[in-house]
Amino acid sequence: MRSVTKDNITEVFTAYFGEDTDPRVREVLGALARHIHDFAREVKLTHEEWQVGIDFLTRAGDITTPERHEFVLLSDVLGLSSLVDMLHSREDATSSSVLGPFHVSNPPPLEIGGDMKRDFEGEVLLVEGTVRDTEGNPIPGAEIDIWQTAPNGLYSSQDPDQDIHSFHGLMKADENGRYAFTTVRPVSYTVPDDGPVGDILRAAGRHPWRPSHLHYIVSAKGFRNLVTEVFPDDDPYLDEDTVFGVRSDLVMTYEPQPAGSFPEGFALSGQVAEAYSRVEFDLVLAAD
Amino acid sequence: MRSVTKDNITEVFTAYFGEDTDPRVREVLGALARHIHDFAREVKLTHEEWQVGIDFLTRAGDITTPERHEFVLLSDVLGLSSLVDMLHSREDATSSSVLGPFHVSNPPPLEIGGDMKRDFEGEVLLVEGTVRDTEGNPIPGAEIDIWQTAPNGLYSSQDPDQDIHSFHGLMKADENGRYAFTTVRPVSYTVPDDGPVGDILRAAGRHPWRPSHLHYIVSAKGFRNLVTEVFPDDDPYLDEDTVFGVRSDLVMTYEPQPAGSFPEGFALSGQVAEAYSRVEFDLVLAAD
Repeated sequence: MRSVTKDNITEVFTAYFGEDTDPRVREVLGALARHIHDFAREVKLTHEEWQVGIDFLTRAGDITTPERHEFVLLSDVLGLSSLVDMLHSREDATSSSVLGPFHVSNPPPLEIGGDMKRDFEGEVLLVEGTVRDTEGNPIPGAEIDIWQTAPNGLYSSQDPDQDIHSFHGLMKADENGRYAFTTVRPVSYTVPDDGPVGDILRAAGRHPWRPSHLHYIVSAKGFRNLVTEVFPDDDPYLDEDTVFGVRSDLVMTYEPQPAGSFPEGFALSGQVAEAYSRVEFDLVLAAD
Repeated sequence: MRSVTKDNITEVFTAYFGEDTDPRVREVLGALARHIHDFAREVKLTHEEWQVGIDFLTRAGDITTPERHEFVLLSDVLGLSSLVDMLHSREDATSSSVLGPFHVSNPPPLEIGGDMKRDFEGEVLLVEGTVRDTEGNPIPGAEIDIWQTAPNGLYSSQDPDQDIHSFHGLMKADENGRYAFTTVRPVSYTVPDDGPVGDILRAAGRHPWRPSHLHYIVSAKGFRNLVTEVFPDDDPYLDEDTVFGVRSDLVMTYEPQPAGSFPEGFALSGQVAEAYSRVEFDLVLAAD
């Protein structure tokens, strides 16, 4: 168009699409451009602010490595990652929540009743539950991929003092869909805030904390993969998770258990004399 | 919020702002998040599409260097750069248009009537005009920073065969606000499309061409800087500039002039026997 204006530029953008453009590309890219244009018009974005945005993206690119995912973190703190999760969450299944960047491929096998705490300091947490379908039937043999931070607040890939499989485990539910393991209670931690996303958080007066959580990916043949997290109901950051990951059905009570009451059937049975905590977290999968 | 949903996430985002947040940061970041959320909800963005976006940004970061500005190019082909220009353009002044990434600092001085063509092949183009205020009064001594592609379609910073100041010049208008110089007619060219932004263009069925143009930055004390371009009215890409830079008042006729008619008062006077072209482009600055 030889006369682009601030009011017709979205139409001009749409007019430039090739006739053979994939309809979904046209829909997504067209909507993206329209919302970006509407945003700029609405706030009357200045050149200086535009430059701040370009510099931000450039710095985010500079800090990004295979281990440091600044664009994912940006999406996380803007709430986009959580929104994409929720858009495809099934209401009759367990809510999905953010995958985050700390999952590892090939997690080590973990037997039912196995232990991830090993020699780390901290209170034992016993986690158990059942994997079910939306009608309440157990899903035998469902695969449960679990990971969390060490007590220092770091995931294995962030921490040179942990081996890469530390606090990662892959469990197969039993014939009743039951899973169970011991670990150490995960801690609240901060997302990496030493880069440009940290600058956004500071500019917005936000902290970088996430409430403590255990990550899960649950999969079973004929069911949709469930990527989720479980949170304790007494975490101070529960109402202000910087990545918007908390859903009401993912908040559980971690029940304190008296000293001497640790049950049989666990790798740690007979070794835990002190008080521990227990959380029950059932996982409901939607059919594929 | 311990119960983030796909419908309340924008309100939750707003609720996370610190009380002392700068009002403009709150306005811009709040609107950005709202539009990103609306975009994702509207197209029901999938995890796979989100991953395509993350991969795109990561690749754009990887290809970005001090000479290669992939995020600027992204903004350009989405129409955002042009929109920001137009949002702050004054209706009674010459339209602004995209700066682009090829301006150099410290351009070499160019006398009135001076020449930028030097030994490059191609038809001589004589460019002249007057810098005026919005009431029609000339602005003596206005500074005019001019740059363009060589006949091979490359700017000096892209082309190892040109020195960095090739086709760049800084002119001071005379006491009547007049400027004039000779050059070679710039050519239509493609924006760099060998990176992720090129993939967007291909997915959208778009070409990477820009109509030929001369770049200007015009400045004078008491006036707003004008960043603009001038386009010939016979360029085949005038109605489909891939960066949305064309405005109707920036399109001029490049008048063919007969052989032997080259005027006096130019560095090339007496040296141009053949036909040449002439364009008159006045520049109207808004008061600061």
